[in-house]
Amino acid sequence: MSDASLSIRNERGIDSSYTNSDDSGCDLADLRVRIRTAVEQVRATRPLAQSFTNFVTINLVANAQLAAGGAAAMSFLPDDVIDTAPISGADYINVGTLLPFYKDALPQIARAFHKTGHKWVLDPVAAGIGRTRTEILRAFRATPPTIVRGNASEIIALADMWGLSAEAEPGNQPATRPAGVEAVDEVDAAVEPARRLAQFLAASAPDKTAAVAVSGKIDLVTDGETVYRLPGGSAMMTKITGAGCSLGGVTATYLAVADPLTAALAASALYDRAGEIAETQSNGPGSFQVAFLDALWNVTADQVAASEIHMF
Amino acid sequence: MSDASLSIRNERGIDSSYTNSDDSGCDLADLRVRIRTAVEQVRATRPLAQSFTNFVTINLVANAQLAAGGAAAMSFLPDDVIDTAPISGADYINVGTLLPFYKDALPQIARAFHKTGHKWVLDPVAAGIGRTRTEILRAFRATPPTIVRGNASEIIALADMWGLSAEAEPGNQPATRPAGVEAVDEVDAAVEPARRLAQFLAASAPDKTAAVAVSGKIDLVTDGETVYRLPGGSAMMTKITGAGCSLGGVTATYLAVADPLTAALAASALYDRAGEIAETQSNGPGSFQVAFLDALWNVTADQVAASEIHMF
Amino acid sequence: MSDASLSIRNERGIDSSYTNSDDSGCDLADLRVRIRTAVEQVRATRPLAQSFTNFVTINLVANAQLAAGGAAAMSFLPDDVIDTAPISGADYINVGTLLPFYKDALPQIARAFHKTGHKWVLDPVAAGIGRTRTEILRAFRATPPTIVRGNASEIIALADMWGLSAEAEPGNQPATRPAGVEAVDEVDAAVEPARRLAQFLAASAPDKTAAVAVSGKIDLVTDGETVYRLPGGSAMMTKITGAGCSLGGVTATYLAVADPLTAALAASALYDRAGEIAETQSNGPGSFQVAFLDALWNVTADQVAASEIHMF
Repeated sequence: MSDASLSIRNERGIDSSYTNSDDSGCDLADLRVRIRTAVEQVRATRPLAQSFTNFVTINLVANAQLAAGGAAAMSFLPDDVIDTAPISGADYINVGTLLPFYKDALPQIARAFHKTGHKWVLDPVAAGIGRTRTEILRAFRATPPTIVRGNASEIIALADMWGLSAEAEPGNQPATRPAGVEAVDEVDAAVEPARRLAQFLAASAPDKTAAVAVSGKIDLVTDGETVYRLPGGSAMMTKITGAGCSLGGVTATYLAVADPLTAALAASALYDRAGEIAETQSNGPGSFQVAFLDALWNVTADQVAASEIHMF
Repeated sequence: MSDASLSIRNERGIDSSYTNSDDSGCDLADLRVRIRTAVEQVRATRPLAQSFTNFVTINLVANAQLAAGGAAAMSFLPDDVIDTAPISGADYINVGTLLPFYKDALPQIARAFHKTGHKWVLDPVAAGIGRTRTEILRAFRATPPTIVRGNASEIIALADMWGLSAEAEPGNQPATRPAGVEAVDEVDAAVEPARRLAQFLAASAPDKTAAVAVSGKIDLVTDGETVYRLPGGSAMMTKITGAGCSLGGVTATYLAVADPLTAALAASALYDRAGEIAETQSNGPGSFQVAFLDALWNVTADQVAASEIHMF
Repeated sequence: MSDASLSIRNERGIDSSYTNSDDSGCDLADLRVRIRTAVEQVRATRPLAQSFTNFVTINLVANAQLAAGGAAAMSFLPDDVIDTAPISGADYINVGTLLPFYKDALPQIARAFHKTGHKWVLDPVAAGIGRTRTEILRAFRATPPTIVRGNASEIIALADMWGLSAEAEPGNQPATRPAGVEAVDEVDAAVEPARRLAQFLAASAPDKTAAVAVSGKIDLVTDGETVYRLPGGSAMMTKITGAGCSLGGVTATYLAVADPLTAALAASALYDRAGEIAETQSNGPGSFQVAFLDALWNVTADQVAASEIHMF
């Protein structure tokens, strides 16, 4: 049997390096080089990725970015965020625990990023819940992020909201999926919404590249063309709060040094490997989180780059 | 000598199962069954308990709820909280670190819960300190929670504020007890205020059941009729921030699957057992918190149900 | 060779106890007694030090204060903070993650502290970034803190803002140093700004004592006259978020029982020793933070008092 961690496979069982020759750079061997380079470059250059994120997991987001080798800064005021953006390689915005002033602040920040072509990662936590969150997420459609990372339900809800569903009809109200912060949908249900979302993001991007990452038992990453599936990780990652949020933050850290597809893949692969290591070294969710941060720090770029990745 | 962890005792030394035959279900053997069932049911069904809580310990509240087997969601906007309530088995409100808009948001949320009979746990952190907190806590009197959990000083201050003290005279200003976030009163001083508070809550509840839990060296829980004392735990729980807050969150998790008295007893007993286990496995407050979360995850329903409980 | 941890040295190689005989109490042996007493007194009396601090590291600030032996309370509303101040030995204000209402709240709180002579520690996080932060930090000039603790870039930026730089000319705009939350300047570059800042603070203080602490590879502490350098600590302290913030919080804890110079020295020395211990007991940033909190709890007053301190 072949080494699963190095397998290259697509929907038709044909070696993907032959079936994907477009700009999106779908040669998996090439992707592995880019992933390894991203992991190494973060550790060598310590890029700053600024975050506007929720209060529950803000500490873990910062600590995960530091453990991955980057630098962290957290802000909520538009003047702070916009002042810091020039020294931030990419930003991370997470709409978890909203305060009233975010309704104006977040669209204002997104407009500033859009104007300067500043790269950012959106985490549409609990998309579909709450009037204020829906207003904010809809407003982002006009000034889209570079990467969206969420669970399946959030990705489906956001694609709906932005009118990107196959079923979307003009005049129809987007479906409201009361998913809470946990996915009620399986990752597979999000393949098409994720792909359409990524195509929409890429079309809006200055360099026409973007990515969408869907977290789940098997992570899914797409640049709008190819869909990548990354199995692995640990079920314990759902037993600590913030595995998803901090993955979003680390995705921004990698985006500071790499293209969107590479950044999303590198972050997902890093998390899967670190989760597996942490599971073997822990005895419950408390020690898992400690071991997970240690593993983010200790896992090698080669281990991350050798991750099992399936192309479709 | 009898096994203390199974002892059944009341003030008159008479087996409590004979002296308590009212609806509040005071047979201790029956209570132990209900406690074990609650612990198991949370682990089996993973109920969501939403929190509106302070920024200091919000992460620990979520992680403790996950470690107990539940699901967590944190929100501050009334539209978020009210949208999420239908999928939340019970809510947790903690008035620790207030922001200006909470003065309107929290009473609005409490009114919405009251209107639909939605169950919730109130943690009156620092009751008596600050004009805004006092306004909020007074407003809750009209739309009371299902369970109040606090330290002795907070329970006494809240009972005063709501005019439930024995000494309360019409026209008198409720005493302001500048307790800060730490109790200056002993649990015993809170027995009568706790009992009166629980009676007031029960009278307002759709099903006429409620509970008050007072945390301290010996925890005290009452449904307004019977008073239960739970000894145990660890002094290290006062050396980490958020043991009390996260206990409140886990109480809401149990309230999602059980009656108020059972929920309060199960949460207190779980915390005492986990604290004892963590103390033996740690070397200071850092490792204590890690071991405590692991113990919340690993302690068995039988261990929790067999906890020492004294009835009075 | 002499024991470095007990060395007493100044710029001219003369024993400092002979060259420093002014009021600021520069006899190093005497300082060590005061440091040991502060560490012991915090553990014996558990003083409350209230914090108004950022959302990223608020949990670590509280846990570090508890681990050092103090008590913690966190608030953001002026009425809360001002109500709690009388029972708080000293306050800690950190301008990390600002919200809009802080622009009025923070100056209001500082004015209340100034009026009553209440001691407080300022952490000018990210000084120079953002219009709102600059307004707040400038406003503090009229009601200055007892201690300022920051990294070199923040100390330089604050001294600039307050017109305390050697180069400051009337009518000039203070330099804006976009340092983010991490220092871009070396500690040595902050010696003169720190000294001038401390002199300014002391001149405004009721008892004419104050201190400035600059965190870095070698920490620098000054009362405006003498400059102290404390080598040691661990590079891992830059790989967790909040080492600096929580040091500020613990400085307030010591300020509750000691003079400003002693408080700043004791906190820096405690952090250096705990960092060194934690480094030997950890395997990455996750286990480092756990071991660090344990070490704050376990390190002895004698270990802290025997720290290497150089006078200049």
